[in-house]
Amino acid sequence: MRSPAKHRRPKHTLGNAPGTIKYMGNREGDAQYISVTDYKENYINVQEFTSIEKVFTYRDTDTVSLIDIQGLNKEKEIEKLGKYFQINPLVLEDLVNTNQRPKVDEYEDYIFCVLKSVSLSASNKVITEHVAIILFKNSVLLFQEVENTVFDGVRRRISSEHGRIRYKECDYLYFALIDAIIDQYFVVLEDITDRIEYLEDQLYNHPSSGIVNEIQNIRKEIIDLRKNVLPVREISARLVNTEHKLIGDDTKLFLGDVHDHSVQIHETLEMLREMSMSLMEMYMSTVTIKMNEIMKVLTIMTSIFIPLTFITGIYGMNFHQIPGLQSEFGFYIVLGLMFFILILLLVYFKTKRWI
Amino acid sequence: MRSPAKHRRPKHTLGNAPGTIKYMGNREGDAQYISVTDYKENYINVQEFTSIEKVFTYRDTDTVSLIDIQGLNKEKEIEKLGKYFQINPLVLEDLVNTNQRPKVDEYEDYIFCVLKSVSLSASNKVITEHVAIILFKNSVLLFQEVENTVFDGVRRRISSEHGRIRYKECDYLYFALIDAIIDQYFVVLEDITDRIEYLEDQLYNHPSSGIVNEIQNIRKEIIDLRKNVLPVREISARLVNTEHKLIGDDTKLFLGDVHDHSVQIHETLEMLREMSMSLMEMYMSTVTIKMNEIMKVLTIMTSIFIPLTFITGIYGMNFHQIPGLQSEFGFYIVLGLMFFILILLLVYFKTKRWI
Amino acid sequence: MRSPAKHRRPKHTLGNAPGTIKYMGNREGDAQYISVTDYKENYINVQEFTSIEKVFTYRDTDTVSLIDIQGLNKEKEIEKLGKYFQINPLVLEDLVNTNQRPKVDEYEDYIFCVLKSVSLSASNKVITEHVAIILFKNSVLLFQEVENTVFDGVRRRISSEHGRIRYKECDYLYFALIDAIIDQYFVVLEDITDRIEYLEDQLYNHPSSGIVNEIQNIRKEIIDLRKNVLPVREISARLVNTEHKLIGDDTKLFLGDVHDHSVQIHETLEMLREMSMSLMEMYMSTVTIKMNEIMKVLTIMTSIFIPLTFITGIYGMNFHQIPGLQSEFGFYIVLGLMFFILILLLVYFKTKRWI
Amino acid sequence: MRSPAKHRRPKHTLGNAPGTIKYMGNREGDAQYISVTDYKENYINVQEFTSIEKVFTYRDTDTVSLIDIQGLNKEKEIEKLGKYFQINPLVLEDLVNTNQRPKVDEYEDYIFCVLKSVSLSASNKVITEHVAIILFKNSVLLFQEVENTVFDGVRRRISSEHGRIRYKECDYLYFALIDAIIDQYFVVLEDITDRIEYLEDQLYNHPSSGIVNEIQNIRKEIIDLRKNVLPVREISARLVNTEHKLIGDDTKLFLGDVHDHSVQIHETLEMLREMSMSLMEMYMSTVTIKMNEIMKVLTIMTSIFIPLTFITGIYGMNFHQIPGLQSEFGFYIVLGLMFFILILLLVYFKTKRWI
Amino acid sequence: MRSPAKHRRPKHTLGNAPGTIKYMGNREGDAQYISVTDYKENYINVQEFTSIEKVFTYRDTDTVSLIDIQGLNKEKEIEKLGKYFQINPLVLEDLVNTNQRPKVDEYEDYIFCVLKSVSLSASNKVITEHVAIILFKNSVLLFQEVENTVFDGVRRRISSEHGRIRYKECDYLYFALIDAIIDQYFVVLEDITDRIEYLEDQLYNHPSSGIVNEIQNIRKEIIDLRKNVLPVREISARLVNTEHKLIGDDTKLFLGDVHDHSVQIHETLEMLREMSMSLMEMYMSTVTIKMNEIMKVLTIMTSIFIPLTFITGIYGMNFHQIPGLQSEFGFYIVLGLMFFILILLLVYFKTKRWI
Ligand SMILES: [Mg+2]
Ligand SMILES: [Mg+2]
Ligand SMILES: [Mg+2]
Ligand SMILES: [Mg+2]
Ligand SMILES: [Mg+2]
Ligand SMILES: [Mg+2]
Ligand SMILES: [Mg+2]
Ligand SMILES: [Mg+2]
Ligand SMILES: [Mg+2]
Ligand SMILES: [Mg+2]
Ligand SMILES: [Mg+2]
Ligand SMILES: [Mg+2]
Ligand SMILES: [Mg+2]
Ligand SMILES: [Mg+2]
Ligand SMILES: [Mg+2]
Ligand SMILES: [Mg+2]
Ligand SMILES: [Mg+2]
Ligand SMILES: [Mg+2]
Ligand SMILES: [Mg+2]
Ligand SMILES: [Mg+2]
Ligand SMILES: [Mg+2]
Ligand SMILES: [Mg+2]
Ligand SMILES: [Mg+2]
Ligand SMILES: [Mg+2]
Ligand SMILES: [Mg+2]
Ligand SMILES: [Mg+2]
Ligand SMILES: [Mg+2]
Ligand SMILES: [Mg+2]
Ligand SMILES: [Mg+2]
Ligand SMILES: [Mg+2]
Ligand SMILES: [Mg+2]
Repeated sequence: MRSPAKHRRPKHTLGNAPGTIKYMGNREGDAQYISVTDYKENYINVQEFTSIEKVFTYRDTDTVSLIDIQGLNKEKEIEKLGKYFQINPLVLEDLVNTNQRPKVDEYEDYIFCVLKSVSLSASNKVITEHVAIILFKNSVLLFQEVENTVFDGVRRRISSEHGRIRYKECDYLYFALIDAIIDQYFVVLEDITDRIEYLEDQLYNHPSSGIVNEIQNIRKEIIDLRKNVLPVREISARLVNTEHKLIGDDTKLFLGDVHDHSVQIHETLEMLREMSMSLMEMYMSTVTIKMNEIMKVLTIMTSIFIPLTFITGIYGMNFHQIPGLQSEFGFYIVLGLMFFILILLLVYFKTKRWI
Repeated sequence: MRSPAKHRRPKHTLGNAPGTIKYMGNREGDAQYISVTDYKENYINVQEFTSIEKVFTYRDTDTVSLIDIQGLNKEKEIEKLGKYFQINPLVLEDLVNTNQRPKVDEYEDYIFCVLKSVSLSASNKVITEHVAIILFKNSVLLFQEVENTVFDGVRRRISSEHGRIRYKECDYLYFALIDAIIDQYFVVLEDITDRIEYLEDQLYNHPSSGIVNEIQNIRKEIIDLRKNVLPVREISARLVNTEHKLIGDDTKLFLGDVHDHSVQIHETLEMLREMSMSLMEMYMSTVTIKMNEIMKVLTIMTSIFIPLTFITGIYGMNFHQIPGLQSEFGFYIVLGLMFFILILLLVYFKTKRWI
Repeated sequence: MRSPAKHRRPKHTLGNAPGTIKYMGNREGDAQYISVTDYKENYINVQEFTSIEKVFTYRDTDTVSLIDIQGLNKEKEIEKLGKYFQINPLVLEDLVNTNQRPKVDEYEDYIFCVLKSVSLSASNKVITEHVAIILFKNSVLLFQEVENTVFDGVRRRISSEHGRIRYKECDYLYFALIDAIIDQYFVVLEDITDRIEYLEDQLYNHPSSGIVNEIQNIRKEIIDLRKNVLPVREISARLVNTEHKLIGDDTKLFLGDVHDHSVQIHETLEMLREMSMSLMEMYMSTVTIKMNEIMKVLTIMTSIFIPLTFITGIYGMNFHQIPGLQSEFGFYIVLGLMFFILILLLVYFKTKRWI
Repeated sequence: MRSPAKHRRPKHTLGNAPGTIKYMGNREGDAQYISVTDYKENYINVQEFTSIEKVFTYRDTDTVSLIDIQGLNKEKEIEKLGKYFQINPLVLEDLVNTNQRPKVDEYEDYIFCVLKSVSLSASNKVITEHVAIILFKNSVLLFQEVENTVFDGVRRRISSEHGRIRYKECDYLYFALIDAIIDQYFVVLEDITDRIEYLEDQLYNHPSSGIVNEIQNIRKEIIDLRKNVLPVREISARLVNTEHKLIGDDTKLFLGDVHDHSVQIHETLEMLREMSMSLMEMYMSTVTIKMNEIMKVLTIMTSIFIPLTFITGIYGMNFHQIPGLQSEFGFYIVLGLMFFILILLLVYFKTKRWI
Repeated sequence: MRSPAKHRRPKHTLGNAPGTIKYMGNREGDAQYISVTDYKENYINVQEFTSIEKVFTYRDTDTVSLIDIQGLNKEKEIEKLGKYFQINPLVLEDLVNTNQRPKVDEYEDYIFCVLKSVSLSASNKVITEHVAIILFKNSVLLFQEVENTVFDGVRRRISSEHGRIRYKECDYLYFALIDAIIDQYFVVLEDITDRIEYLEDQLYNHPSSGIVNEIQNIRKEIIDLRKNVLPVREISARLVNTEHKLIGDDTKLFLGDVHDHSVQIHETLEMLREMSMSLMEMYMSTVTIKMNEIMKVLTIMTSIFIPLTFITGIYGMNFHQIPGLQSEFGFYIVLGLMFFILILLLVYFKTKRWI
């Protein structure tokens, strides 16, 4: 029964030196999309590029520069970028490793974090995307596999002339990006909550065996979310308490708000997990109770008619001399006997509270 | 099977800047009710207002001022209040966010906390309300969605000329409000305990399948209470150990009492959870044991009468030559044989302890 | 199905100011019994009083004075006592609150603790009593609802002229009272252990459905004991490490012994809990296995006799022309066919290991 | 159903003063066996005594003296010994208390520890023995209930002229005794592992209901071992980090090895626990799957033959005018009808994948 | 039922002095294979030896020397090596003890660690190997039972002239060996994930009872992996935070990456464990739901045909005077009655939603 399943693209890099940049996702063929949103209080400039070298200049400009790189499969390009920005190869490795769990690493000149953004597809499936963000003094590098609507709100606030974000430094942009990802979690959790409540409702009103599959699907989604979402609590706790020079006290207050949310998400996930288990239990007990009722009907029907049928069998035997067969009232006496047995059995079942 | 359920009002604020004041509850249409209870040892003055600006003056008066704002849907008004009282926008956001989990945040000039008050409706349902309280040096801001009887006791003690609360500062009032909320938890927990004990009783005396739904309802209520009530332990622990200038040593003693209660509530909730699980298990084992008994009856009836009926079938066949049919005693011999088989089977069931 | 159960006496004091002395138990009518055991190395004096004021004098005498107050319903008397001994109203509140969970609170001049004594009634039921003890420099206040044999051993040791306790200070008496309560826990745990082992024995030898109720009872008792007994570990840990002036180093050694016992009690309770769960599982698996056997018998009997009976049915039909009916050997050929089918089925069941 | 079981010897000492020496085991009648193994690098002397006073002299000799006392029922003797060695009465109490959980207590001049040695009886039952060891500067007191082979290896190494132990101090002997007890745990754990694997094998190849009892026995043994063995991890952790003057740095290295083993034992016990639970689950699912198959056979047989038998019943009725009875082909037409129904039912079951 | 299973080679060394070198594996007969890979930036030399003394010279050469010893059964040789390298006997004991759990021990001049390498056999079974590594200033000792492909990548990088490893010290080699082992864990976890997903798929599309065995196998593999893999997290955490002189800051960065991976492995293992449990539950609920359906068919068939057959039985009795037998329409009236009963029963089942 061992699975002959063809392995998907291997998720590991056996034998590679640590720090080897090896893309792990499934979008090897995708083109890379590079853009920079450069802004200050009274200035904003959004540009797209096709070559990675063009963004190097933004590293040191004293504007806030959001350097957005979509497509992690161009290992060479990312290596060049890494060299210019002096990023540790271990960071570059994790950057393109779509299997990397969420985490934050503080280096002297930059802070690196990996997060998973989640969203709902048109068909309400949970879609998970790998996102890596690096905070430098004067720029923020944002790495994604594909374009993602999760940061639309941030971009809109940057575009708006009076958005608070325009008056703030890179650390606030860094916070805003993380905050946008975490806000999205609530949407997914809410959807799961709705589906659990809907199933609960179904269970009471139109129980069907399809519910088991639905519950199991939800449980799998929760398991998956836990993997991608729970480490965020550690990340936010760490950022709130960091003493890194790049994070200002002002921004820490906002990071505290993020931490607040990640704690709430953690608790909600655990609650949903317990609710899904309880739902499953509920369904199984419904099944068991129904089986009980079915068996009761079977037993009552059988217990009543089997002895009666036996009696008809006796008088159906072809013996030449069965007492009563010739009697005028024989038939009625036997019917009476059957009726008496029926009453006895009904009383018995009544005593047992089966009927 | 995916739920086509219309989402209720979305519980999230995707894309908003942090600190955006966005009411999250379901009472958008409600009017706002504003009142101030201003008191000192020998002075008390209760007033209602329709405009938020009227309460500003109470911020700095050296009396204790309980500023009570019912209705969180007036985002503009709350923004004005926040500006005058110099409250951080993040606090204002949480204030009106009825999905915010219970928490306490200390700022330099004020202490902010969110709690959930719970109470029992006329039909014994648990009603949860979002409550936010901010302690300033000379006033306490109390935010609720609707009027709530939970603070009636506190108001009564303030009105009473000799109430200890009249001789104390704002921090004592702050404690008294939190204490009132937590005292209410005991009422709800007691009700759940009563219902579990009642179900237990029912289970022994009149088991019915409706019990499963009742147990499941209780489990859901407990899950919900855990979400709203458990974080209170962290809050009280934090307030007992705070070094904030606004909380006096004297009041800390009282906060210690609150912490005591929140620990007891935590333990009781865990106990109720275990009791509800154990009750469910108990019911399911009752069902299984009953099924066993039903099957036993079915098996005994069937095992006895099916072979006997088979024998009647043999002598009911229309073969012209079946030995014994003509015999005078054939019928009785067959009856005797049946009786013998019956005895054999009864002995067998006796050996198996089935009867 | 909502319980119409009349609430017992409410266990909460909604709206009262904190520090309000409100008796919570069920013995409102009881008379108060007051006694003082006053002793030194070479002196002992036991006296009973009817008025609370009589004990005030013992507060400061440099003898060890065990002031024993039975009956917590006299709120006024306890308030007087509290005033004279300068006890914080919060302490007085907890003192008479029979729902207060076990805890220890250190104040500057006294140490207050609440414990639950447990014992076995004549009918082996667990009886829980609320006990509060306050250690002063020169006296120990002991509060109980009724007389309780749990302290008989301590009294006997005090009475004995050469008891070590006579040569020690109030802190040792304080320890001795706590120790007496904890020693009692072992008796109850031992009884539960015995009952679990007895049930286990029953399960192997005379399984009956009554066992489920017994197991469930034990689980409820364990849940109850956990509530009352587990916090003791925190209390003893706290007392061992206290730096309060009233507890001498010498006594801490003895408190370490108490802590040892409370750890052992904790572990035993967890073990009993696991044993009771495992017992339940064991019983349910016994039921399932038995059901399996019952179904096997049913299936074998049915599967054998139903096809055979069908054959008799065929030859029992009243068609005028059924081949073989007239034949001399028809009956025997059909019997042979039936026998052949029987053998086939038995072989089939044998292959399936059902017989 | 309450157990009328005669209590075994009570395991508690209600009402005794703490420090009362009270033997708790079941070997009240046993004689005491006292021996001393006195050694240095180049000297060894093993002697047996009948009176406890004879060993007093070894307390201060600068040789290493292993004072071995078997039989804890002689309370008077142990009191004398305690007085001479200046052992705290609380230690003496725990020494003879065979219910004392494993622990270590450091006093100024000695270190006391209680352990449980476990071994396998001839019939492979786990035997647990109470062992207490006290380390003094120049002697080690070893208390056991009976002779125990667990220390044979240590004795052999002492006897051997070139054993490292001969060149070491008392603390190394102390370690060696503890190490010997812990090494023994591996033997028992290995036996349980073997039995679980054997049961697993049985389950696949010859499942029988006796397996449930076996699994339950193993679970009980594991529960028991947990009680006796898990606290050892705390003990070894404490000894590794002690700053007591009697434990040299050199010996701490060896105690680190003991700690290593106790961690491994802890993990193995947890693993065995999980394996035993998983085995039970596995068995129960086997039972359920088998029941499913049994029910399928029952349902198929019944569903096929009951309608067919009904048809024979119709044509077996004694109505004078049943159409077809006189027909030449009536019988065959009915047989054909039955065959058609049979095919229909088989197709139905095939569709349901029941056959 | 107690297992008569021959014990495999005992896994313990009862009665041995600590520090006794005792091989614990199953490959007593194997020859030892010794090789040294000696390298610097611009120099590399790989040599095989047959005598252990030949490697001694590499201890102090200032090149990086990877001393690879395959075969742990030559206790004498390892003792010699230990003496020359001045390795503590406790380390040597753990070195050859294939049952030693993963751990790291820091000594003044060397760091010792034990790990378990895991890999997949040709038939996809998990193979676990004991690996011990000792880091000295100028050499790394690597102990294995057999040749293992896990380190092939490291060797290849050493051979490559431009590998970063050639420019680094012994601590980097030490890290690279540990990293290679941990990278391998991902391969195994991925295989288990694939198998679980395949089973899930099977469960939906072709459920069969063989799935239970497969799930149980996976659970056993996970239990086994947990034992061997979970302690790695402690090891990596310890190495990241070590202050040992042999580990440079540069290498700590890489060890941080290893720690990252071990945390991810830990989480994945827990997730797989939960997934396997959920799969089992899913299967069992499928079985229960199927049983419900089976019972429904049985009950419906039986409940319909048993009463009808009873009626045929009545009119099949041989009484001379049964009313209606002679009637022309008797037969049809009875058929009509039966049809009416059938309709009644179908309506009943419809009401119950059974059909
Ligand atoms: Mg790698
Ligand atoms: Mg946010
Ligand atoms: Mg976590
Ligand atoms: Mg985590
Ligand atoms: Mg939980
Ligand atoms: Mg569960
Ligand atoms: Mg936001
Ligand atoms: Mg917030
Ligand atoms: Mg309160
Ligand atoms: Mg909590
Ligand atoms: Mg919480
Ligand atoms: Mg209180
Ligand atoms: Mg539980
Ligand atoms: Mg109160
Ligand atoms: Mg005690
Ligand atoms: Mg606990
Ligand atoms: Mg507790
Ligand atoms: Mg003790
Ligand atoms: Mg005692
Ligand atoms: Mg050892
Ligand atoms: Mg333990
Ligand atoms: Mg544990
Ligand atoms: Mg413990
Ligand atoms: Mg070792
Ligand atoms: Mg488990
Ligand atoms: Mg050893
Ligand atoms: Mg790696
Ligand atoms: Mg773990
Ligand atoms: Mg571990
Ligand atoms: Mg990495
Ligand atoms: Mg689970």
